[in-house]
Amino acid sequence: MFHEDGRKDLNSQELQNDFDPLAVGQAMIRLIAELYPICRSITGNGLRETLRLLQRQIPLEMREVPTGTQVFDWTVPKEWNIRDAYVKNARGERVVDFQKSNLHVVNYSVPVRRRMGLAELKEHLLTLPAHPDWVPYRTSYYKESWGFCLSEKQLAGLQDEEYEVCIDSTLEHGHLTYGEYFLQGETRDEVLISCHACHPSLCNDNLSGIALAVSIAQVLQSAPQWYSYRFLFIPGTIGAITWLAKNQDKILNIKHGLVLTGVGDVGALHYKKSRKGTADIDRAAAHVLKHSGQRHEILEFSPYGYDERQYCSPGINLSVGRLSRTPHGTFPEYHTSADNLEFVHADKLREALAVSLEILSVLENNGTFVNLNPTCEPQLGKRGLYRMIGGAADAGVNEMAMLWVLNQSDGKNSLLDIAERSGLCFESIRQVANALREHGLLREFSECMPSAAG
Amino acid sequence: MFHEDGRKDLNSQELQNDFDPLAVGQAMIRLIAELYPICRSITGNGLRETLRLLQRQIPLEMREVPTGTQVFDWTVPKEWNIRDAYVKNARGERVVDFQKSNLHVVNYSVPVRRRMGLAELKEHLLTLPAHPDWVPYRTSYYKESWGFCLSEKQLAGLQDEEYEVCIDSTLEHGHLTYGEYFLQGETRDEVLISCHACHPSLCNDNLSGIALAVSIAQVLQSAPQWYSYRFLFIPGTIGAITWLAKNQDKILNIKHGLVLTGVGDVGALHYKKSRKGTADIDRAAAHVLKHSGQRHEILEFSPYGYDERQYCSPGINLSVGRLSRTPHGTFPEYHTSADNLEFVHADKLREALAVSLEILSVLENNGTFVNLNPTCEPQLGKRGLYRMIGGAADAGVNEMAMLWVLNQSDGKNSLLDIAERSGLCFESIRQVANALREHGLLREFSECMPSAAG
Amino acid sequence: MFHEDGRKDLNSQELQNDFDPLAVGQAMIRLIAELYPICRSITGNGLRETLRLLQRQIPLEMREVPTGTQVFDWTVPKEWNIRDAYVKNARGERVVDFQKSNLHVVNYSVPVRRRMGLAELKEHLLTLPAHPDWVPYRTSYYKESWGFCLSEKQLAGLQDEEYEVCIDSTLEHGHLTYGEYFLQGETRDEVLISCHACHPSLCNDNLSGIALAVSIAQVLQSAPQWYSYRFLFIPGTIGAITWLAKNQDKILNIKHGLVLTGVGDVGALHYKKSRKGTADIDRAAAHVLKHSGQRHEILEFSPYGYDERQYCSPGINLSVGRLSRTPHGTFPEYHTSADNLEFVHADKLREALAVSLEILSVLENNGTFVNLNPTCEPQLGKRGLYRMIGGAADAGVNEMAMLWVLNQSDGKNSLLDIAERSGLCFESIRQVANALREHGLLREFSECMPSAAG
Repeated sequence: MFHEDGRKDLNSQELQNDFDPLAVGQAMIRLIAELYPICRSITGNGLRETLRLLQRQIPLEMREVPTGTQVFDWTVPKEWNIRDAYVKNARGERVVDFQKSNLHVVNYSVPVRRRMGLAELKEHLLTLPAHPDWVPYRTSYYKESWGFCLSEKQLAGLQDEEYEVCIDSTLEHGHLTYGEYFLQGETRDEVLISCHACHPSLCNDNLSGIALAVSIAQVLQSAPQWYSYRFLFIPGTIGAITWLAKNQDKILNIKHGLVLTGVGDVGALHYKKSRKGTADIDRAAAHVLKHSGQRHEILEFSPYGYDERQYCSPGINLSVGRLSRTPHGTFPEYHTSADNLEFVHADKLREALAVSLEILSVLENNGTFVNLNPTCEPQLGKRGLYRMIGGAADAGVNEMAMLWVLNQSDGKNSLLDIAERSGLCFESIRQVANALREHGLLREFSECMPSAAG
Repeated sequence: MFHEDGRKDLNSQELQNDFDPLAVGQAMIRLIAELYPICRSITGNGLRETLRLLQRQIPLEMREVPTGTQVFDWTVPKEWNIRDAYVKNARGERVVDFQKSNLHVVNYSVPVRRRMGLAELKEHLLTLPAHPDWVPYRTSYYKESWGFCLSEKQLAGLQDEEYEVCIDSTLEHGHLTYGEYFLQGETRDEVLISCHACHPSLCNDNLSGIALAVSIAQVLQSAPQWYSYRFLFIPGTIGAITWLAKNQDKILNIKHGLVLTGVGDVGALHYKKSRKGTADIDRAAAHVLKHSGQRHEILEFSPYGYDERQYCSPGINLSVGRLSRTPHGTFPEYHTSADNLEFVHADKLREALAVSLEILSVLENNGTFVNLNPTCEPQLGKRGLYRMIGGAADAGVNEMAMLWVLNQSDGKNSLLDIAERSGLCFESIRQVANALREHGLLREFSECMPSAAG
Repeated sequence: MFHEDGRKDLNSQELQNDFDPLAVGQAMIRLIAELYPICRSITGNGLRETLRLLQRQIPLEMREVPTGTQVFDWTVPKEWNIRDAYVKNARGERVVDFQKSNLHVVNYSVPVRRRMGLAELKEHLLTLPAHPDWVPYRTSYYKESWGFCLSEKQLAGLQDEEYEVCIDSTLEHGHLTYGEYFLQGETRDEVLISCHACHPSLCNDNLSGIALAVSIAQVLQSAPQWYSYRFLFIPGTIGAITWLAKNQDKILNIKHGLVLTGVGDVGALHYKKSRKGTADIDRAAAHVLKHSGQRHEILEFSPYGYDERQYCSPGINLSVGRLSRTPHGTFPEYHTSADNLEFVHADKLREALAVSLEILSVLENNGTFVNLNPTCEPQLGKRGLYRMIGGAADAGVNEMAMLWVLNQSDGKNSLLDIAERSGLCFESIRQVANALREHGLLREFSECMPSAAG
């Protein structure tokens, strides 16, 4: 994984040269704003429209899987589409109106067109009493049902009168749609970047994840990398299950992965470890966050959450972690109308991008080396690698990094191992490893092996 | 270790239904009060009488091992019996009187009948200067000697006059006696419950341990279990050594064990780990205490203490821990007349019983399972195992437990492993494992193996 | 490693009997004072004179390695000698004078004899602005150059006039000199004691290390030991590299080692772990310091420092740690004229000696034993190894030590393992292991093995 070709390294210095961080953050916000109004679900035209808009950003391929397809223990559901929905009062006024917000309809509601009194209607109304101005987001994918979500204030205003209830939806044989973008690297080994694209008008969950994945893809496509990268824009749960079921031959190629979701709010970055807990992605993410100087948290794996649930199921068990800011369910705006355009921020998205790229840079540049002059230190001075006047009380960071790389490079410790043991950042370790390699003092471990796979 | 038969589970819910906790605590106190006056020792009639009284509670078998029997490095000692003992002053008054408390005679004192002055007598008197009202408990099992224990106040009242000293004891060829109760389970694998029964009028050490062992036996005999259970009521040290030496063929059957002692005082429960330190009994006890909501301590193994010293000697090395409250030697009443009926409490005994049964319940129900649908999550909803309306911010504990069991059941993690990793209590994990098994989603690991031993 | 011969054990009790600690501390200070004025370097007559003075203390052999000898990646440099050096002002006064302090000349300065103005001169002057009274210590071993070190105050006093600059040095083909003392023990396995002897008039760094090594050698030569001991008095870096390059056949014999430096200041003792981190020397040092009752620190290995850099390079990888007080570079006096005779203290040197000898005593006496009566405890009482009156609330430390040694001696745990697990000091563990061995209860593990190497 050590490269001398013209590949651009994903480290922060090059990023700063190549990118305008402000512009990148603003572009992510613009994409989120563009996608925000669309009524997405786990199937249907809203999802298709979303993916089509993403195709303007990256060469995404759209996949369609027919209703009824068996995917492991699950079945691809009927396709859901909706044109309109409302509750009209006796005066014909829309007191709940899908046109104002697609959150007002329980996602996957079956078609309804009926008149009923308030008591019966209330059995189909969902509110958030603790936040009387907010509309909750609810779904009923796997039980045929219908309902409306509205604010507690709206509910309080409803009179005991007859209402006209209309959900102009269809739930019929069709397809599950997802987007896939594969970026070929030098090796068939893959890094998976996955985000869910099934939530309607909610910004942090998960338009922020979509925007981040798009930005990562845009950076990577501008520079050939060692790993191949696979980007999935899928409906949560059923989408991941569908992809895994239909791509079992590709699973073994996935060496590392990240689920991206909820990365635009003001909370600290949270990395949730893979089921393995000590995978390279887990260690790379912890390392980058530790050296980021930002508040952050490392979360242990748990089987609840987003699509890491599927990627980390015991029979799949991929090295896939999750990058988020405030974890889902721990902020009140989660799955409500308050997860809107004001809830996500360009600078937070930009920071998440920088951290993501640094994590990928660690994976790209990690490797295990052998000190070719292992008996005592090599004389760095005669190679111009050392300060020339001895006796000064402090040695520079680079010199320390050089000593660490030389000392630990016995074919057993990767650069990430060395960064962790030394307490120095991976980027310093990588740079001096390059310098030492150029001076013939270091060789990649696999190059020393008779049967090196290259 | 997973059972579908009619066995009662030892979990707290069933306990609460089947038992009257207040009554159980009172019964333990009554048994302690009944045994309190008896002058027990490591051999002799007091020990026999004690075991005979226990036979009214459980079908204990009494074993007799002759004096002189070689048991590993030790020899079964002569049998000691005592009828009376006193020190009379010049006026013929009993100034120290065995009839008032059997603690007044150094246990295993040889017979004496002499007259002597105060100076000579004092060489045979033991007191506790720090607690002038208390009488110490002392023994001289392996050195033929005699002595009296008395309070510092009694000692202060002794005049410089001639005393008549009488210890009407015998130390002769006889037997070492112990009680054993074996309760057959579904498997020959055993859980050992051991307590020492050699201390005279001391309540916490160890009538409390005896009462707890009796109560556990009474609960277990009312409900067939997976494991066989062996209860030993033995003289400390020499009793454990004797049992081990004479039952070497049975040692390998013992998979888990508990030494019970000092469980009736008001101190926090203390579990002392086995020599192995990570045995299932160690983990089960730590887990139950952690989730008990009670103050407690987990102690590392040390080779000092009660009969765990023998069970955990390097050539025996059983997975035997110790359950106590305040550890011996760390409370002033230890081995004194202040360890009396006021020092032990029904509610503390009852709590110790509940914790003991929960620990045994973990051992009984622990097992390693295989998720039969390991690729991605199974669709719990279609099996009625999942909430039907998605999107709510919180999932119930049972749902989390289900996800944990499914995620971790790869044949490598036991239910106790899963309880520890998830932070959920074993009982929740056990319940959902049962439910998942009933729905065909889980199978016991051994059932998946071609050569499963059942 | 367990001995019954007449060898003196290096434990503190015997030390206290055999040595007068005050006298030993004073002797170390006297040696430091004697060596202080000499202008040492990594080669040359100052180093030779130093070693000759050490030969009066211990039978050190002096080795000479010619300039130009290839030693691994390095080459033995030209030999440097200096007779005089000064800067004279226009009035002929020596404003900087090598005769006052050898620190005034940059060590390894090439010969110079010139006149120049202040501006040009200043390019060759080094000061310590933060400590205006102190003269820094600087070297230029591997770049031919010259310079003077002086105090900031001296520099401030220099007028803008013409100066006469003279460095009467030679840098010519010659030798690198080092001292070696090998003390034969019962086994060919060696303990390496290494200190650098190349610094001129600096007391803590490293005359203190030299004095400590000499004292250890004097103690050890008075009493035959199990291990052989090799003492090296070498120029830093190039000396260690030279010894290792020319003694590759001996490296495998070195089982443990200590680099000694900076042990005379008032700071806490610091032990820096070997690269391995869990070598016996690392554990012995941590154990002794923990039980010393003194403030101390255990430092993780890093590849910066003294000659542990070479001994712990990946192709050498010896179990060599470093004993110091305040670590180099973290006290302002480091590498300045303030590291003088007032900076080192007899009682600190003596403490360092006591700790060093206790560490060596752990290595000498560590061993792995087998309990020959592993089933249950042996009856200590019948062997006179146990208190005779039972029931007392506390057992002595020795009894606990005995129980620990018996319990843990299953051929897998060394005495040091047992000391660590029990929390007892090694010396107690060692003493009871001796007693148990004398009573036939313990045997060294290797003696139980058919193919024991002895």
